[in-house]
Amino acid sequence: MIFLFTDFGAADIYVGQVKAVLHREAPREQVIDLLHDAPAFNVKAGAHLLAALATRIPAGSVTLAVVDPGVGGPREPVAVLADGCWFVGPDNGLISVVAARAKRHQMFSMGWRARNVSASFHGRDLFAPVAAMLARGDRKTPNLKKAALAASFGSDDLGEVIYVDHFGSLVTGLRAGAVPQGRKLVINGRDIPHAQVFSEVRRGEVFWYENSLGLVEIAANATSAAARLGLRVGHVVAVEPG
Amino acid sequence: MIFLFTDFGAADIYVGQVKAVLHREAPREQVIDLLHDAPAFNVKAGAHLLAALATRIPAGSVTLAVVDPGVGGPREPVAVLADGCWFVGPDNGLISVVAARAKRHQMFSMGWRARNVSASFHGRDLFAPVAAMLARGDRKTPNLKKAALAASFGSDDLGEVIYVDHFGSLVTGLRAGAVPQGRKLVINGRDIPHAQVFSEVRRGEVFWYENSLGLVEIAANATSAAARLGLRVGHVVAVEPG
Amino acid sequence: MIFLFTDFGAADIYVGQVKAVLHREAPREQVIDLLHDAPAFNVKAGAHLLAALATRIPAGSVTLAVVDPGVGGPREPVAVLADGCWFVGPDNGLISVVAARAKRHQMFSMGWRARNVSASFHGRDLFAPVAAMLARGDRKTPNLKKAALAASFGSDDLGEVIYVDHFGSLVTGLRAGAVPQGRKLVINGRDIPHAQVFSEVRRGEVFWYENSLGLVEIAANATSAAARLGLRVGHVVAVEPG
Repeated sequence: MIFLFTDFGAADIYVGQVKAVLHREAPREQVIDLLHDAPAFNVKAGAHLLAALATRIPAGSVTLAVVDPGVGGPREPVAVLADGCWFVGPDNGLISVVAARAKRHQMFSMGWRARNVSASFHGRDLFAPVAAMLARGDRKTPNLKKAALAASFGSDDLGEVIYVDHFGSLVTGLRAGAVPQGRKLVINGRDIPHAQVFSEVRRGEVFWYENSLGLVEIAANATSAAARLGLRVGHVVAVEPG
Repeated sequence: MIFLFTDFGAADIYVGQVKAVLHREAPREQVIDLLHDAPAFNVKAGAHLLAALATRIPAGSVTLAVVDPGVGGPREPVAVLADGCWFVGPDNGLISVVAARAKRHQMFSMGWRARNVSASFHGRDLFAPVAAMLARGDRKTPNLKKAALAASFGSDDLGEVIYVDHFGSLVTGLRAGAVPQGRKLVINGRDIPHAQVFSEVRRGEVFWYENSLGLVEIAANATSAAARLGLRVGHVVAVEPG
Repeated sequence: MIFLFTDFGAADIYVGQVKAVLHREAPREQVIDLLHDAPAFNVKAGAHLLAALATRIPAGSVTLAVVDPGVGGPREPVAVLADGCWFVGPDNGLISVVAARAKRHQMFSMGWRARNVSASFHGRDLFAPVAAMLARGDRKTPNLKKAALAASFGSDDLGEVIYVDHFGSLVTGLRAGAVPQGRKLVINGRDIPHAQVFSEVRRGEVFWYENSLGLVEIAANATSAAARLGLRVGHVVAVEPG
C-alpha cells in the first residue's frame, strides 16, 4: 500500500501525474491519498500532521511525503524506515517527527536518479519511482545508503495550530495524552474549556477535545471554530498551567 | 464495490483514513467516492441527494454513508439492505429516503464494535470495518439483527435546494418525473421557466431542467445560477400550481 | 489505464458516477484523475492543458476528456488515437491540440449509443462506456468509423494563461523549448524575468520558468503570482521581441 501526503492540492494537476508513475512502476499497489492540502510552505506543521496520520498506517506500507518549498535547491532526498513503514521525501524535516517518535528507525540516502528529473517536481520524478520500488520490495535499485537526517524537528509536541479542517476545526500539534484531564487551553489570550464530544456542548460553543488522531483539537459545535476565533495554522496554543 | 457518500471533505484528512481501513479489511474491493462534500450538518438534504445518487449504483455494492453531526451522542449505527444494495451509516435519517423508496428493504442493527472506537470518527472506526465485512460477503461478524429505523424522512420528494454544484447549479429534492410538462418553478417569489437542455436558452438565462439524476435542477447557461439568484442549500422550491 | 481530464469538479457529484460506469465496464483498469477542475467553459485552454499533460501518459492508455459546454447540442462525440493513446470526448476542439501535435493520429466517429443517454451528462452515459470498451481492447462495440475533427485549434502554442494552480502559479500555453534562453515575458505591460528554479529568486519575487510539463509558467517564490499580478486564465502572454 502506498500513501500520499503532500501539499500538491487534491484538485490540482500534480497528483494524477504522481499516480501515473506509481501505477506504471508498481501496478499492483493500492494508492491512498492521506492528504494533498498540507499547509503550503509550512514543513514543520506538515511534519507534525504526518506524524499523527502515520500512527494509522499499517506496517509494510510506503508513504510518499512531500512538502518541499526548497525543491530544486540543495536539500537531499531521504528514505526513512520507521517501525516497519517506509517514508520517502525531501530531507527538510518533514519526515523527522515520524522518525524521532518511532521505536526503531533507520535513515537512508538514495543513489538512484531518473534520467530526466525536472527542477520543480521531484514528487513525480524522484520520490514516486523510489516509493514504487520500495513498495515492490526492491531495495537494490534505489541504491540506499545509511545516512543521518540533515534537518529534524525532534519528537516533542508542537504547541501550534498545524491544520484547519473544512469544518473549521483547529488541529494542534499537542498530543492529548500529555495534557492533564480537564485542563483548559489558552490561545490568543482566550481560555478554551475541555469536552469529550461535540454533543456535550451547546451549539456554537468553542471547546477542545482529543480528536480521532489523538491530538488536541479546538472545535465548535455545528460551526467553524476557525471563523469564530479568527485563527489559522501557526497560531500558538498553550496548556493552562496546573 | 464500495461507494462513499460523506461530508468528510474531498480534500481533507478523513477520507484517506477511511480508505486505509477499507483496503486493509477488503483489499479486493474497488472503492469509489460518490461525494465527500455533502451539505455539512444537513442530514435531510443529504438523505435526498443520496437517494438520487443511489439510483445509479449497482446491486451487490456497499455504500458507506456518513453525515453525522450527532456522532458520539446516542444515535445508533444501522445497516440497510435496499433492492440488493447495502448502506451502512448512522441511524439519523440519512439512509431513510433510500430505504423508503426501495421496492424491498430490510434494516439491521450491528452488534460488532471495534476495540478502540474514537468518539468523533465512527466513519473510520465503525462504519468502514462493517462496510468492508459486508463487501466481502461476511454478514456474520457484524452481528446483524433485524431492526427498525429510529429516524426517517419518508419517501416523499423534498421541495428544497439540496445541493449546489461547482458550476453553481441548484439541485432540488424534487424528482422531475412528478412535475407536469412545461410547468414553471417558483423560488424566492421568482418564476423559473423550463428548458430541455442548456443550449436551448440564452447565455446567462436561468431555467430548470431534469438533470442527469432525474431531479429538478435550476441552472443558468454558462454562469452560476446560485450566484445570480443568491440561493443555497435549504431554500424552498415550489412547482407553479396547474 | 484510464485517465480522466474534465471540468466536472474534483469535489463534486459527477466523477463518482463516471467511475461507477468505468469500473462496471472495465473492472481491471486503473482509473487515474489527471484533472477535474479544467477551466470551466474554456475549451481552448483545456485543449492546451490536456496536450501538455498528455505528454506524460503512457501508450496504450485511454483518456476520457470532457470540457463540454455544448453538451446536448449538435456537437458530435469523437475518439482520437494519437501516438498509441486513445482520447474520447466531445468534438469541440478539446482533443484537437493533442491530435495536431501527434506524430501519427486517427480520428473516429462512434456509432454506439447507450439506451438511456441523459441530455446533460455524456461523460457518464456515452464517453465513459466507450472509454471502457477501448480500454478493454474492444474496438468493435463502439462502432468506430474514420472521420475528421469538426473543430480544431491546431498545433500552435497559445500565448495565454491556460491554468492557475492552487499555489497561484500561472501556467501558459507556450512550450518553453520554443522560447529563446534568457528572454523576458511580457504580460499586462509588465516584464517577467526568467529563472531556472524557485530557490534562485528572492521570496515574493515574480519570475517565469520551464515547468515540469515543459510549459512557460509564471510563479513567485513562496507566494501567489496570480494574486500579485491580478491575473487569471485567458490573459495574454507574449515573449519579449529578440
